[in-house]
Amino acid sequence: MIDFYYQYSIYLKKGIKTMKPYENYVSKQDIQIIHEESLKILNEIGVKFEHPEILEIFKTHGARIDGNTVFMDEKMVMNAISTIPETFTIENSKGNHTLGGGSLILMPGVGNIFRLDNGHLHKMTNNDTVDQFKLSDTSDVIDCNYFNIFLDDKGLSIDERVFSPIAMILKYSNKTALHLQANTFPLKSGMSESFKKGLELIEKFEGRSGVYNNIVHMNSLSPLCFDHDPLEKFLIAAEMNQPVWFSPCSMPVLTGPPSVAGLIAMTNAEVVSGMVLSQLVKPGLPVVYGQTSASTNLRTVQLSIGAPETALISYATRGLADFYKLPCRTGGGLSDAKDFDMQAGIESDMMIRSTLEAAPDLVLHACGILGSFNILSFEKFLMDEDTYRMNRRLLKGINTEETHLCHDLIAKIGPRGNFLQGRTPKMFKEEFFIPKYFNKEDPNQWQENGNEPVLRSVQSAVKERLASYTPPNITKEQSNLLNKYIPACYRERI
Amino acid sequence: MIDFYYQYSIYLKKGIKTMKPYENYVSKQDIQIIHEESLKILNEIGVKFEHPEILEIFKTHGARIDGNTVFMDEKMVMNAISTIPETFTIENSKGNHTLGGGSLILMPGVGNIFRLDNGHLHKMTNNDTVDQFKLSDTSDVIDCNYFNIFLDDKGLSIDERVFSPIAMILKYSNKTALHLQANTFPLKSGMSESFKKGLELIEKFEGRSGVYNNIVHMNSLSPLCFDHDPLEKFLIAAEMNQPVWFSPCSMPVLTGPPSVAGLIAMTNAEVVSGMVLSQLVKPGLPVVYGQTSASTNLRTVQLSIGAPETALISYATRGLADFYKLPCRTGGGLSDAKDFDMQAGIESDMMIRSTLEAAPDLVLHACGILGSFNILSFEKFLMDEDTYRMNRRLLKGINTEETHLCHDLIAKIGPRGNFLQGRTPKMFKEEFFIPKYFNKEDPNQWQENGNEPVLRSVQSAVKERLASYTPPNITKEQSNLLNKYIPACYRERI
Repeated sequence: MIDFYYQYSIYLKKGIKTMKPYENYVSKQDIQIIHEESLKILNEIGVKFEHPEILEIFKTHGARIDGNTVFMDEKMVMNAISTIPETFTIENSKGNHTLGGGSLILMPGVGNIFRLDNGHLHKMTNNDTVDQFKLSDTSDVIDCNYFNIFLDDKGLSIDERVFSPIAMILKYSNKTALHLQANTFPLKSGMSESFKKGLELIEKFEGRSGVYNNIVHMNSLSPLCFDHDPLEKFLIAAEMNQPVWFSPCSMPVLTGPPSVAGLIAMTNAEVVSGMVLSQLVKPGLPVVYGQTSASTNLRTVQLSIGAPETALISYATRGLADFYKLPCRTGGGLSDAKDFDMQAGIESDMMIRSTLEAAPDLVLHACGILGSFNILSFEKFLMDEDTYRMNRRLLKGINTEETHLCHDLIAKIGPRGNFLQGRTPKMFKEEFFIPKYFNKEDPNQWQENGNEPVLRSVQSAVKERLASYTPPNITKEQSNLLNKYIPACYRERI
Repeated sequence: MIDFYYQYSIYLKKGIKTMKPYENYVSKQDIQIIHEESLKILNEIGVKFEHPEILEIFKTHGARIDGNTVFMDEKMVMNAISTIPETFTIENSKGNHTLGGGSLILMPGVGNIFRLDNGHLHKMTNNDTVDQFKLSDTSDVIDCNYFNIFLDDKGLSIDERVFSPIAMILKYSNKTALHLQANTFPLKSGMSESFKKGLELIEKFEGRSGVYNNIVHMNSLSPLCFDHDPLEKFLIAAEMNQPVWFSPCSMPVLTGPPSVAGLIAMTNAEVVSGMVLSQLVKPGLPVVYGQTSASTNLRTVQLSIGAPETALISYATRGLADFYKLPCRTGGGLSDAKDFDMQAGIESDMMIRSTLEAAPDLVLHACGILGSFNILSFEKFLMDEDTYRMNRRLLKGINTEETHLCHDLIAKIGPRGNFLQGRTPKMFKEEFFIPKYFNKEDPNQWQENGNEPVLRSVQSAVKERLASYTPPNITKEQSNLLNKYIPACYRERI
């Protein structure tokens, strides 16, 4: 799957020293500088932890505290990081997945609000959410699935609102779900209990406990703060022995400084402080080093994700995770475009190629994202799949083994000859990328065939894909366990 | 201008060993293997030169000849290459340009037949050709201009047909023209004389001879052949002491083998044999090592340029030029899409980033290309400009100098603070890419503002750009020299 390391394996065989692609953008020395600046921030400026129990934990372990602000020194930091495993495996009845060393596990988008439909946006309907899930489930590019919350929750019970994202995916996904959380936003109280109940639901469905079956997400609040609720969720994750995943999303000039290096150093300090906490509470608990910071559109004061700086932040994220020897999450098929247009293609290609070069372990928002995470396009989803395939081919590099020099064939055909002789050679099919959705016709033929826009043919492909979905086999008991959390109209089939 | 070497200059200052970006795709050892295979081809299979005088030249210098086929050994090859200069300068009244070491001189597209206009294609009109020229002339991304032939030549005299591409650019371009050739296609006889007259016209306009003022283009005919006319033109270039530029354009499975490495080894043999010829005729004559081979769409038997293999061929081209220590030409903003759509963006971004990574000296077809070279889109031209700017920012990498760590600012704002304080910081403007044409609005605001497609705003920008063109000042004598080669309607103004 990590076919982009193919070239490196060839290099290694040949004994050629090579670098990882991201080192062209951020060197090992740059990473060292950023790490040292983060240590300085942790020691001199500190991080706020807005949770009394957590502050007490830091205090017990000898951290300096001032109000809510925790200061930590290099020794505390490096001791904690040394107990985090380099890799870990999510064990799941739909398949296991190991994170570490560039797993490149692709997951669909999370939390989209609008759907793009023929140049117009509408609020995602519940059926759109189901279709998004089906597209991911039938994708040969997406590795692990996810189920977004139902945005139209007027007719839903509180149990359905809170637990449907877990129940729907356990019931209907053919793929492993790495990231399953109760939607606690509708709750006025009892957040912790419901969050825990969500994790227990997975254990009941799987019929076993004590293994890693999920990754619990935890956002810092830039600059340099963890507010109460994520810390509460962290404590439950630690209690249930489930890996945690940190994701700062800082915006330069708003919640971060106006430079890429400063933004990374600051958010790295946030993640590192969270990792220290994780190991103080439960040494050896797996952690995913994450990052989603991007650029800012200062005219509208909005997050701008399809930006070259977002790619640079991805490279630095992988660089820092390598430095700390940790699994990481970053990247995605990100764009700020609003339509199925050239901008969507430019930004997505830049981000998809950068993501493959960074080779994080986990990639959320891999396909279909537009409008700074807010918009989902089914058609872009399929085009993004082709973009991953295309860039995976590119990153394989050039195979110069003797078979691929084709000397005998060139000698046989000779000067001014013609290589077209019957069937398409197997080697061509292996060497040259053939896209599923890109239109490679000749312009003349294209006009003669009726000028069909790529959008039209991809719309047809979306319909075919949705129709091809079939649910997995789960037991009657498993189904019964989940049904009370699933809206009535989706209980029997989707 | 070559700002993408900025990061390397930082690395060099820091004493960090680095590789050029293309070495991730094709290593120095891969290049050595390809070179050796090319030598084997030249020695065992040979190259056809369909020109008696040229065959005689090879014979005189000791090459083995069999019919039209010339064989050459390693010694002959390496001796010839050793006399080619590593860099050379085109001297021109509109500005000098030096090729060598990654000059990245961007030039517009050449030879487009259709123009894309709101989802439909029409044959390029003469005014379209003039507008394409104006877009390039007013571009801050395009470095050297070019003037395409007038496709509608019904009312034109033979002199206007043949010499207008030279006369129009000399009269109307504010930028240097690196590549000026008489259009000899309409001629039934006297090709050589007209070609020479074209080169002399430049010397007359410039008011001096004996300097390099142009690069003469020479296509090989894959596999492994040079037919008569390009060789005839080469002899004139050598006589006029003007640099020559080789461009194989081989298609796998048709005019080349079915692998990337084989295709490159074979076309490299073609270029190398041409380079040997150049140095046998005129040792020290500058040569541009070129390559435009791409993929093949085997369903329609068409050239496919927006392909990952095209990018790999660009990397290998730079690698071979570096190996031989030569200036080179490859790359471009290439796409096979037919519309201003997502595919156009994906393919162009891949190729533009790859082009900047390869860092050739000369990039033809830099902006606006669609449909396998056949289609020009004015709107894509402007989007491509933004794509170059975006990728140049990306390739600069992360600046980790102390100023850019922003330690004092982060300390001042502190945990949970806000960095938004009055004016946009200068550092943000330098660090974060702000596109001219990409739409970075929030999806909600975009809908409220009337859903304007990016295409519409770029169409307006195209109009503004065309209106901003002003011709250069040239003398009355220069103008008179050119007017007889310019169609009447463009003699006074364009």
